[in-house]
Amino acid sequence: MPAFLNDSFLHDDEALLHVSDLSIQRGYAVFDFFRTTNGVPFCMNDYLDRFYRSASEMHLSISKNKQELSEIVYELIKRSTYTDAGIRLMVTGGYSADGYHTAVPNLLIICHPVKLATQADYEKGLSVITYEYQRDLPQVKSINYLMAVWLHPLLKEKQADDILYFKNNIITEFPRANVFMVTRDKKLITPRRNILHGITRKNILSIATEMIEVEERDIAVDELLTVSEIFLTSTTKRVLPVTRLNDQIIGNSKPGEITSVLYKKFLEMEELVTKDQATGAVNPYSMP
Amino acid sequence: MPAFLNDSFLHDDEALLHVSDLSIQRGYAVFDFFRTTNGVPFCMNDYLDRFYRSASEMHLSISKNKQELSEIVYELIKRSTYTDAGIRLMVTGGYSADGYHTAVPNLLIICHPVKLATQADYEKGLSVITYEYQRDLPQVKSINYLMAVWLHPLLKEKQADDILYFKNNIITEFPRANVFMVTRDKKLITPRRNILHGITRKNILSIATEMIEVEERDIAVDELLTVSEIFLTSTTKRVLPVTRLNDQIIGNSKPGEITSVLYKKFLEMEELVTKDQATGAVNPYSMP
Repeated sequence: MPAFLNDSFLHDDEALLHVSDLSIQRGYAVFDFFRTTNGVPFCMNDYLDRFYRSASEMHLSISKNKQELSEIVYELIKRSTYTDAGIRLMVTGGYSADGYHTAVPNLLIICHPVKLATQADYEKGLSVITYEYQRDLPQVKSINYLMAVWLHPLLKEKQADDILYFKNNIITEFPRANVFMVTRDKKLITPRRNILHGITRKNILSIATEMIEVEERDIAVDELLTVSEIFLTSTTKRVLPVTRLNDQIIGNSKPGEITSVLYKKFLEMEELVTKDQATGAVNPYSMP
Repeated sequence: MPAFLNDSFLHDDEALLHVSDLSIQRGYAVFDFFRTTNGVPFCMNDYLDRFYRSASEMHLSISKNKQELSEIVYELIKRSTYTDAGIRLMVTGGYSADGYHTAVPNLLIICHPVKLATQADYEKGLSVITYEYQRDLPQVKSINYLMAVWLHPLLKEKQADDILYFKNNIITEFPRANVFMVTRDKKLITPRRNILHGITRKNILSIATEMIEVEERDIAVDELLTVSEIFLTSTTKRVLPVTRLNDQIIGNSKPGEITSVLYKKFLEMEELVTKDQATGAVNPYSMP
């Protein structure tokens, strides 16, 4: 796996951080993640924008500008041999002299093979449990997944695939994905507040707005149990139906009608956008 | 700085973790920290117990038993040249194949010079601001200091030394220290819930119980503003008076009477315990 650390391209084996780094000392770092399709990064501009926003919110500077990051990403893709690659960008609090205050940030970019959700995953759908929790600084893609990783044994015990967070009876997001619901009168609703604003979420909203009524607003846990469809969106999972929520079956355990149309249109968009970029027909910076 | 990683003693320069470690990927790790006085670890048994408890709560196994950890610590102290050393133990989620699930934990122990609070720090006291926040899994000494580090610019702006967390009007703790207050009728009170149970806190409670009435209970923010003394306790700060809370002066800006007695008695205890251990008069495992 090819990697880049601060100013050097290196092999993944050499992607090491000294333990004084503030990610290791205090869990202080931000990251972002996107993937390639047809050999080109999908919506890279949006992901890079979010990466800079996260870093800025966390008072961390990134030593490269967007053009430079983009060039490093393309070089990593060239050096890799993966058909579908995942690009992980990270900026940490740096090698801290006292193990508590930020120093010169470390910038790390890794290109690795990526496992996407399959058509079979889509057909099967997800079994989900709810859990009361609110991430700190939710608009920032920080590395703080303490609760998400800590909950893995609970997921296993409940034989569930994922956890849906809520706080004060309002649902927010999955640890690594956004949530959508389709009401019985065919409105598409997704939370607006206290979440990470996903790039796939943005694309789905953009597609859906052309088709049906869309609302971004608070959703109560109880309301979620009355809807006809629930699905999640994420970079590697694209669109996946939720077919079980706690002990309740959602939509006859099958992907819903609206979910299926959105999924199909998203795949078409992905194909179109990356194909145009691969042939050089479109400036990658003008991508949605 | 001498260090130990999994099975090997090494120099601090070689204390590196691959970026796939779950501390770097997801901020998933626990640690503990203690120091030496008169060349011997102070209350090591208590700190090691807490380290095992934190790891267990986080579903992380530690590859060495307490006797083995203790021997590694003594070897590190022998290899170091510091009069006062800090010992930092850490166990991480390990090199994760998918960057999200735990693997074989990495165990890391580092011996480094330690900067303790001085008599001048004690005389000066601390200026503190309150901030609404509750740590996740507060009984676990995890590396999640996202909020604490994120708040550094606010501390600077307010010209404050430290932050006192509260939640729903109940105070809990500092990011790295416990809080105590002395009421006008000379009771010593400290929070009992939603905190990390400090070893210095435990020692101070043990000393104070012999002297005055002691309570462990919830403290409202408003109540804290009515008291005659406030101080914090931590491993490196021992006992430090809080002389300003938000915009209010506490105890005429001077260390309080009870605070001073407790501080003096704590220093005596530290001297006694470590001196006995240094001369081999006391079994280190029977220490308070």
